[in-house]
Amino acid sequence: MRILGIDPGYAIVGYGLIEYENGKLRPLDYGAIETPAKLSTPERLMMIERKTIELVTDYTPDEVAVEELFFNTNITTGIKVAQARGVVLLSLAKMCDNLFEYTPLQIKSTVTGNGNAQKKQVQYMVQSLLRLKETPKPDDAADALAAAICHAFTMRDVKRGLK
Amino acid sequence: MRILGIDPGYAIVGYGLIEYENGKLRPLDYGAIETPAKLSTPERLMMIERKTIELVTDYTPDEVAVEELFFNTNITTGIKVAQARGVVLLSLAKMCDNLFEYTPLQIKSTVTGNGNAQKKQVQYMVQSLLRLKETPKPDDAADALAAAICHAFTMRDVKRGLK
Repeated sequence: MRILGIDPGYAIVGYGLIEYENGKLRPLDYGAIETPAKLSTPERLMMIERKTIELVTDYTPDEVAVEELFFNTNITTGIKVAQARGVVLLSLAKMCDNLFEYTPLQIKSTVTGNGNAQKKQVQYMVQSLLRLKETPKPDDAADALAAAICHAFTMRDVKRGLK
Repeated sequence: MRILGIDPGYAIVGYGLIEYENGKLRPLDYGAIETPAKLSTPERLMMIERKTIELVTDYTPDEVAVEELFFNTNITTGIKVAQARGVVLLSLAKMCDNLFEYTPLQIKSTVTGNGNAQKKQVQYMVQSLLRLKETPKPDDAADALAAAICHAFTMRDVKRGLK
């Protein structure tokens, strides 16, 4: 099963594609969509839509895991991020029936065993579980891979009757 | 010139269409898109996209005025509203080149002369300026009409060199 993880944002949307077969995780690709600050808000939203559709078209994931928004302390940034997340969700929902949402707490808890894990711990576990030589960069890509891994483990536990 | 005003939301998106010719305002239509609470978030966002596209297709506005988000004190609601607003902005931007955004302060100030006007005062001015027999309902439709009027007056003042 190919799982696409997405960490939505306005300036940057992280993505990570993994394969999960017979209990084994394998990284396929990861990276980020970046929207230039010089563009207007509608232009940046249109770019996020176009690139999100490209991701699903190119990677043909079986399931998609999207991180829910952890509210930013900066309200202006928070609104822009939430607007962008709406566009990401819409674009994914139109392309893929198997769309799952996970809170930052669920992702941290499932990937590291600790819901209060620091960003570095999550990155370490992502690198370790996927047997990557380096920590995935940018951070948003690591977060997207963490969302994908969270979904893989959650589905495994659901099948085992643990969740 | 036909101006479509939009008050974006998640459960309800207000809209109002006015005509502005030779300094005269005329109401053409108003109402609201409502998304049923029983649908999932992606389903509600897809409905908002579809209905927003329908509005522009049906009403063929020359220009569109969208209210910017005033941050709600309820963070969970605020995130959902901002996500929906992202979808509304995206859908409008794809259909219409003449897209303008106004803050609640700009709208209140332009429509009533008072940036701190109460909702009732804004509704009263909308009803009065458009010579409507009743206050437009729901409130979101009145807010959308206020956004459209704000745009008409702002364009007039820009032409007169006042702004």
